[in-house]
Amino acid sequence: MRTDPPPGLLAAVRAYERALGTDDLDALDRLFAPGPQTLRGDAGGLLVGHDEIAAFRGARGGAPERRLVEVHVRTADDDHALVVAVTELLRGGRGQQTQLWERTAEGWVVAAAHVHAPAPAFDPRVWRVLGDPLVTGSADGPLARRTVAVKDLYAVAGQRVGVGNPTWLDGADVEPAHAPAVARLLTAGADVRGIARTDELAYSLAGTNTHTGAPPNPRAPGRVPGGSSSGSAAAVALGQADVGLGTDTGGSVRVPASYQGLYGVRTTHGAVPTTGVVPLAPSFDTVGWLTRDADLLAAVGDVLLPPDLAAGTWSPRLLVSPDLLALAQDDVAARVGAFAAAAGATASDAWRTVDVDAWAEVFRVRQAWEAWRAHGAWVRAHPGALGSDVAGRFAVASRVDDATGGAAGERRDAIRAQVLDLLGDDVLVVPAAASVAPRPVPAELEAVRAATLRLTCVAGLGGLPAVVLPTRHEAGSTSHAPEGGALPEPGRRAPFPVGACLLAAPGRDRALLALARELAARL
Amino acid sequence: MRTDPPPGLLAAVRAYERALGTDDLDALDRLFAPGPQTLRGDAGGLLVGHDEIAAFRGARGGAPERRLVEVHVRTADDDHALVVAVTELLRGGRGQQTQLWERTAEGWVVAAAHVHAPAPAFDPRVWRVLGDPLVTGSADGPLARRTVAVKDLYAVAGQRVGVGNPTWLDGADVEPAHAPAVARLLTAGADVRGIARTDELAYSLAGTNTHTGAPPNPRAPGRVPGGSSSGSAAAVALGQADVGLGTDTGGSVRVPASYQGLYGVRTTHGAVPTTGVVPLAPSFDTVGWLTRDADLLAAVGDVLLPPDLAAGTWSPRLLVSPDLLALAQDDVAARVGAFAAAAGATASDAWRTVDVDAWAEVFRVRQAWEAWRAHGAWVRAHPGALGSDVAGRFAVASRVDDATGGAAGERRDAIRAQVLDLLGDDVLVVPAAASVAPRPVPAELEAVRAATLRLTCVAGLGGLPAVVLPTRHEAGSTSHAPEGGALPEPGRRAPFPVGACLLAAPGRDRALLALARELAARL
Repeated sequence: MRTDPPPGLLAAVRAYERALGTDDLDALDRLFAPGPQTLRGDAGGLLVGHDEIAAFRGARGGAPERRLVEVHVRTADDDHALVVAVTELLRGGRGQQTQLWERTAEGWVVAAAHVHAPAPAFDPRVWRVLGDPLVTGSADGPLARRTVAVKDLYAVAGQRVGVGNPTWLDGADVEPAHAPAVARLLTAGADVRGIARTDELAYSLAGTNTHTGAPPNPRAPGRVPGGSSSGSAAAVALGQADVGLGTDTGGSVRVPASYQGLYGVRTTHGAVPTTGVVPLAPSFDTVGWLTRDADLLAAVGDVLLPPDLAAGTWSPRLLVSPDLLALAQDDVAARVGAFAAAAGATASDAWRTVDVDAWAEVFRVRQAWEAWRAHGAWVRAHPGALGSDVAGRFAVASRVDDATGGAAGERRDAIRAQVLDLLGDDVLVVPAAASVAPRPVPAELEAVRAATLRLTCVAGLGGLPAVVLPTRHEAGSTSHAPEGGALPEPGRRAPFPVGACLLAAPGRDRALLALARELAARL
Repeated sequence: MRTDPPPGLLAAVRAYERALGTDDLDALDRLFAPGPQTLRGDAGGLLVGHDEIAAFRGARGGAPERRLVEVHVRTADDDHALVVAVTELLRGGRGQQTQLWERTAEGWVVAAAHVHAPAPAFDPRVWRVLGDPLVTGSADGPLARRTVAVKDLYAVAGQRVGVGNPTWLDGADVEPAHAPAVARLLTAGADVRGIARTDELAYSLAGTNTHTGAPPNPRAPGRVPGGSSSGSAAAVALGQADVGLGTDTGGSVRVPASYQGLYGVRTTHGAVPTTGVVPLAPSFDTVGWLTRDADLLAAVGDVLLPPDLAAGTWSPRLLVSPDLLALAQDDVAARVGAFAAAAGATASDAWRTVDVDAWAEVFRVRQAWEAWRAHGAWVRAHPGALGSDVAGRFAVASRVDDATGGAAGERRDAIRAQVLDLLGDDVLVVPAAASVAPRPVPAELEAVRAATLRLTCVAGLGGLPAVVLPTRHEAGSTSHAPEGGALPEPGRRAPFPVGACLLAAPGRDRALLALARELAARL
């Protein structure tokens, strides 16, 4: 391939560097090919089309100052050339930029760009503290050398707990002992890789945090990761930890699992001690975790869970409720419905008469009342300390009086009985969330939260265990598969993840995890 | 640009994925274009030429299992097409691969590839513990919010000291207080970003570590970073910290500064307390630090250093010794010589008669004797705990008897007087190291160490302050410069860094740092 630059190409590359330096958006827009085929990829994901790229550039507020220290040109023909540049950033580190340039009637334009900037020491949207490891587990055990991202609600000996809020962290003491859930993982041989970010006081399903930003969602670039176990989930999705230890009150494990294509479990209420974990709403709070595969999800359960209440053989029916499916967006309902069908689930009308709006309201009111009892004094004493979304939720919570909170508790008990009756000893397949991961737009997040709570409140109110599995979508086979190298259809975008959620009776956690393993292997 | 794949292209892409999955090196070699023009870049740097790429592939032992989840094709003409793929790794995370394919007589081959794999949580070759921040400094001060990578020899309250060795770390207690140097940086507003790797017990100039690997050298991919302040230096070069706090006994700041194109200072012996720092050879040990610019180097000095011994105006002559220059490789001597000339240095014959081999031997013997006094008991009690390079050095040290060590101390004092006499109140420009960063090949490292010690021992024996500045080389202007966007010559590789070192009389630290600022601004 020729290495001599075609006429005008280097001038265009120089113009591009100048435009980047001055954040001249018009010039940058002109220097990228118009139309829906232009590509730009970096560590945050691949953008397709001139408009997506222009929107990204408009939002980032300029590129870091850099110089090109090497330029290599590979010329395909007089109208097409690849320019590979080694960049050196003034803030330190080297990167690389690969651009396919095309000569058009308007001059040279970039048809495709691949940029990598030097990585930061770590991603502070995902982690607060890290070590190699931060805490070393037992020399051996079933989880030997598995790495754990611990949600910043759990006590880790020698560390403070930050609950996603810098004011809280400033006032926190160093913990003298591990929370039992952390201690059990260490005893089983797992290492604590670090302490992962959480939505403030776990009072959110979005995965955003005013103070530290939203962790990235590698499977849905530009979308939120889901929360509140957002950092634990992102750490697992990014391959930076094997296990994401989280909590689930109203969906804080199930929602990020669904948004990020992970396996996740919310355990039976009370099955795993929440000692040493900062509470949100104790009558709903549970320990949960996320992994990239169903086998490890179950292996962690073997370590953390007590034996199932009902031992012996369990051959549950798999049921799916068209009425509950219909609470999700059409595409989500379709993918969870297809998953349920492939799993052999049969449709059930049993849930038709349930008033999920009323259930969600009971959950919301009781959760708010408990949250205010747990944290109202701290919230009052630290005005302005919380981000507006969580502060707004606490403001609402502060107005739930004891009579209303108590009444909601009674309604919760009645609903729990109804849930247990409807579910029996079967397994119900529901969408893990009502939508795919939404954009980080407050109004959109609030609407999605309300819709998702109608689905997630069932396990919360029932105290049920719930296991999330990612539904599959078409993709290439892996490079190591026997038939390796099958490719997805060129040009097709990978769809955002959708999780299917299995619900069972309280105390069925281990059996439910075993069922999830079986389904994951089969589907 | 067309998006339909030319005939045979997708089959070649599939074949490539299969070959990657089975680590079929022959097939991968065939699928990359032959000759010196083929490109392959990733976070570790840009490889140029089929041979470099094949050598890299042969050494890495296979690629991680992955699948392609998106494939985009942009076709320049029937013989050239760009394939952009989004990859999903089984170990988690997404990456991107951009390949320029060319059709040759032998079929489709890759002419250029740009790969990025998902980043790990952090680079354990550089860091042991990290936080956002790990320790928060004062709210304000001259170093407010500057981030510091602390070499794993310094006490950081609440953390253990690891000295680059896992056995030492296992036996270490949590430190109750910061070393004074760390405390002063915190008081000045700097934050501790984390604890950075060091060569074991600082007894090396290479920047390698048997247990955790060598930190990367972003300016010299594939070469060692220099040590023993290797992690602190790499953190700064990578842009992961602003200040790398290190130590310098026989060159442990100067050598990594030189190899990585950084600014670095070794302070006058005794000027900054080494309390709370694990010693190597106390009569030579000094505190030092590295930065990406001369202004910050001096600003840290303002915080850590006492006032200079001789106040008032200082107008030193800048001298350069052709005899000392000649101790370096030709290219290093040429670049440091050019630097000295540009700085206005004049040649001096004063150092002609110095027997640097004898000086280096005195340094080596006395350092060994002190190192064994400091750590011999621990080394004896932990056989097999050290990597072979450092263990070998301690084995030699164990055989230096007290008479020999004492005599070397007397020789050191005599040489010190001679150095002070030769230097007077002038500034001597010498190469910071005898070579550019060598390959991580034991024999090469040992040869380079011996050559470099002949240069670095002068400051060690004299107790002198020493400031390293990177010598410049041709590169593009920065994207933000007024004339922004000037490009280096296409195809030219960026040379490896070379550092120039300024030596002055003890106690001249602040003035020497000010001179370095002036030279950095002017040259």
